[in-house]
Amino acid sequence: MDTNSSYLAARLWDLDVVVGWMTSCRDDAADLRRAVSDAVGRCDLVVTSGGLGPTEDDLTVDVLAELAGVEVVVDEPARARMAARFGDRIAITPTQERQVRVPAGARVHGNPAGLAPCFELPIAGVPVMCLPGVPRELHAIVDGGLADRIAELREARGDVTRIALRIYRVFGLGESQVSAACRGLVDGVDGASIHYQVKFPEVLLKLVVRDRDRGAAEGRLAALDEGVRARISAERLYATGDVALPERVGAELRAAGLTVATAESCTGGMIGELLTRPAGASAYFAGGAICYSNAEKVRQLGVAPEVIERHGAVSEEVVRQMAEGARERFGVDLAVAVSGVAGPDGGTAEKPVGTVWLALAERGGATATHRLGWPGPRDMVRTLAAWWALAMVRAALARRGGA
Amino acid sequence: MDTNSSYLAARLWDLDVVVGWMTSCRDDAADLRRAVSDAVGRCDLVVTSGGLGPTEDDLTVDVLAELAGVEVVVDEPARARMAARFGDRIAITPTQERQVRVPAGARVHGNPAGLAPCFELPIAGVPVMCLPGVPRELHAIVDGGLADRIAELREARGDVTRIALRIYRVFGLGESQVSAACRGLVDGVDGASIHYQVKFPEVLLKLVVRDRDRGAAEGRLAALDEGVRARISAERLYATGDVALPERVGAELRAAGLTVATAESCTGGMIGELLTRPAGASAYFAGGAICYSNAEKVRQLGVAPEVIERHGAVSEEVVRQMAEGARERFGVDLAVAVSGVAGPDGGTAEKPVGTVWLALAERGGATATHRLGWPGPRDMVRTLAAWWALAMVRAALARRGGA
Repeated sequence: MDTNSSYLAARLWDLDVVVGWMTSCRDDAADLRRAVSDAVGRCDLVVTSGGLGPTEDDLTVDVLAELAGVEVVVDEPARARMAARFGDRIAITPTQERQVRVPAGARVHGNPAGLAPCFELPIAGVPVMCLPGVPRELHAIVDGGLADRIAELREARGDVTRIALRIYRVFGLGESQVSAACRGLVDGVDGASIHYQVKFPEVLLKLVVRDRDRGAAEGRLAALDEGVRARISAERLYATGDVALPERVGAELRAAGLTVATAESCTGGMIGELLTRPAGASAYFAGGAICYSNAEKVRQLGVAPEVIERHGAVSEEVVRQMAEGARERFGVDLAVAVSGVAGPDGGTAEKPVGTVWLALAERGGATATHRLGWPGPRDMVRTLAAWWALAMVRAALARRGGA
Repeated sequence: MDTNSSYLAARLWDLDVVVGWMTSCRDDAADLRRAVSDAVGRCDLVVTSGGLGPTEDDLTVDVLAELAGVEVVVDEPARARMAARFGDRIAITPTQERQVRVPAGARVHGNPAGLAPCFELPIAGVPVMCLPGVPRELHAIVDGGLADRIAELREARGDVTRIALRIYRVFGLGESQVSAACRGLVDGVDGASIHYQVKFPEVLLKLVVRDRDRGAAEGRLAALDEGVRARISAERLYATGDVALPERVGAELRAAGLTVATAESCTGGMIGELLTRPAGASAYFAGGAICYSNAEKVRQLGVAPEVIERHGAVSEEVVRQMAEGARERFGVDLAVAVSGVAGPDGGTAEKPVGTVWLALAERGGATATHRLGWPGPRDMVRTLAAWWALAMVRAALARRGGA
């Protein structure tokens, strides 16, 4: 299950590098040679991941050295780190030493999260950057220095274009709505372009400005930024850069000093799970009631049985009582509630699969409600509903001036 | 974000097809030609996904026809299905007709979930199977007929080997423990092999037997199956084939006619979310209490404040009271509780990050507890804890003779 390819592709997209060609191959020297040779023949930069470990299957160092026509050598700083890590009690065996080898003359970038150094060397004039395959190590290296290194490489190639870019994260609008809202935004703006990517349930929007002068590129980007924000409300455009909605909501709740609780039916705990993803969630999250059955809606949240009887469990009236009951019982500032038909069964003509009611109750304020009607598979209906719950928390914070 | 590659690789692994080479490329005719030509030169079967839609970017049909030296034609059955779908009110435009075209002479497999037919044609003697890129359509086609088609292709190539295989899903043991338990299992068994794959938090084990006679292969597989089950307990080896742990636990709860509730601290709702993934979860899942704060552990579940005070929130005593409180309050047969240090902060020398206590209370039975100590990032600690909670539910069902 290769997650590195999509991770690298996403990170390179962020840096406005076009990924032109991706190959996955087995731990076979001939295949690896072929994959790297093909890539250097068609791209300006090649990034590999994997094959830097200690076993006989790990062939990247040897194959790269062979392609570059150089020897394989031990990287002494990496060996010293390994020795320090192992201490006195563990000897470095020849097998373990394999993972601190690099092709002679390679530029060694190090590895903040592991033992095998990452390195870079030119093959046929094209820089080939070799990263480890362990996702945690790969992420640490990429987050630590890929952007700077790519800027250097661009400069070294005589590429005098400077790039200013910003990535906007939008939830609550489809890709076509986002692109319609931004139609014409970059028209006539020198060197500017706009790009979209759907990453369910959100949409990413990337704005890029190129210029020989960094200041000029950044100036035009700042002007376009105002345009984006005039066209997409802050309620929908929830963050820029590498911040997902749970982290954003968590940070906003902390900043506002407010607490939240959840009351979940069809999402089954997903909203609580999202709200507790950020470290330190206990600062704002008290807890939640998962009330899948009607009896639990009554017992845990005080929903009136006759209201369920009259309007059905998936109704504005019931989610309103769920949210208000949770707010009061948990003693929190905000409580969000969800009840819906996630499917595949249980839909009716009046309430088809995908019908979800949400409510947000707040201390000293009116309860807001929202109805979703998005036909789709069960997992997507639930994910969409859980994200909407977070969006309603953000909207409440904005109303209170906390966002 | 390409999810098709890993999906196809996993499905082909299931079918004992070795994926030798994978390429992703842009919507560029030259790149696509190159990718397909490279692949047919090195493999016995090529599978493509994407590029079958209606827009000018969708080039697969044209490129494949060119490589095969045939014309592009409209597939009349697919066009008829499109006309039936559109009805009288929508005319088929030339753009829409693009997606019902196929290379002349292609074997058309159809598409149960979409408009663009999937098809197969030989290029340089190698069958190239072209599937749509929309994941839902891809999955429907693969689940519907890939196994049969691959068996046919094996036969057509004169491959008289028959393959019997089974995939075992194991949770609660690491890959090295599973492989140690199965050491020597296939030794001396003609045509048998064993393969492992880590799919956090579980481990997959694949057993393959090849023989010219299907019955002989299946007979030896049945004997090996007994060996696997003798070496890995049913508590750990939770399913065979394409069934994930939430579906398995849900099915077992339904079969036993028992109900369950959750009491979650560090997992924040994740156990409830897992238990409600299967459709029809209301048959066994009543609800849950997410009690992130100590106050909520007391209020929702009746945990004694002095027990929290004395032992800490992450302790055997507290999860025991959480589970027993939930079982009683929700009026269910089984209740599972979790409290842990998910990190990255909050660890101590005595209870480092990754320390998680779980408890399973049952009607009329003793409460079981379990301590995990797995150092890792926050998301993985939480996922592991939530899966362990499900495993404890299974263990309780087994004790009651329900599994």
